[in-house]
Amino acid sequence: MISVNEDTIVALATPSGTGAIALIRLSGPSAITIINSVFKGKNLEEQDSHTIHFGTIRDGEKIIDEVLVSLFIAPKSYTKENVVEISCHGSKYIIDSIIKLLIKKGARAAKPGEFTLRAFLNGGLDLAQAEAVADLISSESQASHQLAIQQMRGGFSNELKQLREQLIHFASMIELELDFSEEDVEFANRDDLRILISRLLSNISNLIRSFELGNVIKNGVPVVIAGKPNVGKSTLLNVLLNEERAIVSDIAGTTRDTIEDEVNIEGIVFRFIDTAGIRETQDIVETKGVERTFEKIKSSAVVFYLFDATETSGTEFDKIVKDLKIVIQEHNGHLILVCNKVDLGQQEILKVQFEVYPEMIFISAKEKLNIQHLEDALLEAVNINALNSSEVIISSLRHHDALLKTAAALEKVLYGIENPVTSDFLALDIKQALYYLGEITGQVTTDDLLENIFSKFCIGK
Amino acid sequence: MISVNEDTIVALATPSGTGAIALIRLSGPSAITIINSVFKGKNLEEQDSHTIHFGTIRDGEKIIDEVLVSLFIAPKSYTKENVVEISCHGSKYIIDSIIKLLIKKGARAAKPGEFTLRAFLNGGLDLAQAEAVADLISSESQASHQLAIQQMRGGFSNELKQLREQLIHFASMIELELDFSEEDVEFANRDDLRILISRLLSNISNLIRSFELGNVIKNGVPVVIAGKPNVGKSTLLNVLLNEERAIVSDIAGTTRDTIEDEVNIEGIVFRFIDTAGIRETQDIVETKGVERTFEKIKSSAVVFYLFDATETSGTEFDKIVKDLKIVIQEHNGHLILVCNKVDLGQQEILKVQFEVYPEMIFISAKEKLNIQHLEDALLEAVNINALNSSEVIISSLRHHDALLKTAAALEKVLYGIENPVTSDFLALDIKQALYYLGEITGQVTTDDLLENIFSKFCIGK
Repeated sequence: MISVNEDTIVALATPSGTGAIALIRLSGPSAITIINSVFKGKNLEEQDSHTIHFGTIRDGEKIIDEVLVSLFIAPKSYTKENVVEISCHGSKYIIDSIIKLLIKKGARAAKPGEFTLRAFLNGGLDLAQAEAVADLISSESQASHQLAIQQMRGGFSNELKQLREQLIHFASMIELELDFSEEDVEFANRDDLRILISRLLSNISNLIRSFELGNVIKNGVPVVIAGKPNVGKSTLLNVLLNEERAIVSDIAGTTRDTIEDEVNIEGIVFRFIDTAGIRETQDIVETKGVERTFEKIKSSAVVFYLFDATETSGTEFDKIVKDLKIVIQEHNGHLILVCNKVDLGQQEILKVQFEVYPEMIFISAKEKLNIQHLEDALLEAVNINALNSSEVIISSLRHHDALLKTAAALEKVLYGIENPVTSDFLALDIKQALYYLGEITGQVTTDDLLENIFSKFCIGK
Repeated sequence: MISVNEDTIVALATPSGTGAIALIRLSGPSAITIINSVFKGKNLEEQDSHTIHFGTIRDGEKIIDEVLVSLFIAPKSYTKENVVEISCHGSKYIIDSIIKLLIKKGARAAKPGEFTLRAFLNGGLDLAQAEAVADLISSESQASHQLAIQQMRGGFSNELKQLREQLIHFASMIELELDFSEEDVEFANRDDLRILISRLLSNISNLIRSFELGNVIKNGVPVVIAGKPNVGKSTLLNVLLNEERAIVSDIAGTTRDTIEDEVNIEGIVFRFIDTAGIRETQDIVETKGVERTFEKIKSSAVVFYLFDATETSGTEFDKIVKDLKIVIQEHNGHLILVCNKVDLGQQEILKVQFEVYPEMIFISAKEKLNIQHLEDALLEAVNINALNSSEVIISSLRHHDALLKTAAALEKVLYGIENPVTSDFLALDIKQALYYLGEITGQVTTDDLLENIFSKFCIGK
């Protein structure tokens, strides 16, 4: 464990750049002594927690700024240490002068995430909550914000805590058996243990499954728009993006590179990917485009496959749809069949199409017809309902991996119960599961892990 | 006068962009009621001024963020109104959501500088102080910061206030004379008035003169480096900038365009301007460069004129120095003669040079010899001592113009005392002087003037 609590750290907590106000934050045992040594106003060492004081910051006789100083006295602060926030004018010169002065008076420049690291080390937040703080700051959509705030407020941590406590109970029982190993007693009822482990495994696999949703919410849902050349993919993308981003022309094969853009539909960010048309082609540049289309399909959550209402669908279409379904199902993706240009299409063709593919959505990208249906189908595909329930959704790859390792260890425990395995092996596997669970909320940490997590924070947080 | 005090305004007060913390500021009679309607925690309407409260901001049931709310109860606030500062996580999504929510609850988006405008209208600051707030935020050097903070803390305002009060006294005396005009009495002693006006004029012309210094401190001191081609101007610039900015070569006439860069010497920002060499030239591009050099010299505060120690100075050099002195003295600039390449120069030439121009500074830009002397000469030229005294220095063109107009009106008063002018004309001129003085600190304002001043502020200030 890193020991950080002896010195007092300082950093700018607001974005750099010129603004009306800037906040400089101090945390540590000497925070109040240090600010008091440069502050002219009330004696800050005699003031209550959660109070604000007007005065000037001075370097000797020179006034650096008129400021407001907020006091948070340990443990009633974010870091659980003494915290001082200095609200000064948002000038780079003033910010630099104040920070330099505080460093001269004994503070140390904070490293990225060091305030939150201290909050974690001092028990103010667990590790999953601390990670959520960074997610919260970078969240750009309603859905990712909701995930982050739920995690920061401990929703996920509470769930894990309960699982972990039950497991600790059994671990201690089995440890007890080891102490009395000569006597061959069973303190831990094997049936109860089996039931618990099964329940844990079920909970954990729910969490693991939720990662698929959590991850796309955090990073945006990748949606590929595919279809034969000139079927109107770029037009549809433009309609969805509400702007003229892709080059639209009547010449088949205009779009050669993949174009990405994001659109926020009901609080969820979708990353739309326009692609080269899927068809046999002699053009080398375009062949590469087709290859890339298949790559994109493999890594996308949703695929729109577009069909042209003015063309008769044939066996070729059926074959492509069949192939796509196989590729997409392999990675749990969703295929949405779209019939474009219905404003130009013949009724007979549309009717036949509808009979074969009742799930197909009939639109006209050009006339902006039925686009709402497409958006609804998108939201349905990402299971927006799960998001609105109180179910816990995980969004961190680190948590996902730790949960997978926990599950593997628990599977071993189950195997050990069913088979003639000695208590000490059982105890080892339970400990292994506890270790991985503990990694998520930070009961188990290494310097590397902490360094890795907090170095991604911004300075001042 | 704009009436602004009925509604409650809201704005982000910290720079936009992602950061650890953002501050959202509310000001107005409903500030506390509005925040209380979306805050879950203590009842904020029952709390003391200058206290901080932890809780959540909620839109209905949905938690937007965990925040700290600071309360400033009128008149103990920047604007003298109720002010609330919300310290939230620095995410654009959260900031937007909170501001939108507060607007939904009755606040209005603040216009640029509107918080400071309210502070001015409510008597918290006078106009010169309010302007200093904007200067303070944009100040980038120690000297400009010092000017701004002195002005914000009222140094300039106090000086003007005293002048204005003395003048008001005489104005009222003369008004009295008008009431008794039939009786031909003199309440205002003409000799005392003459002495006062003379003293006022002397003070005001000191202030007007200080503008030259104040302006260059605020905007940087323009320094031109001139001299014949290949005399080492670019090398000197590089040494002063401490970096390889200009292209340096041995070919005469390499620098054709003017290059500007800033360097901070002892807290004062100097804008160095490298120029094309001064000589007769056939090259059209370079001829334009020479023209531009003379333009730059006319608008610069200091000119370094470089002479090459390896060449014999002749009548040409004497003529250029003479011409430069005339041009530079016209706008109160400073000429600093520099002899470069002393490491290569012959003793005899240097000796002759020194006898003719004892003020010349001998350096070697290439060997970084005597550069400190140059810097000292620069600081002396801008009269750094005036800055360190407690003398008031004005830096605003608006104040400079108003002071010029005040002085003109006072000259008329003086003329009126010396000549047979009736009291009503005298009263008119005194009023005119009072009007212009009042414009500076804001006793006299128009909507246009306020609009013009505050629209240049950032939003949230």
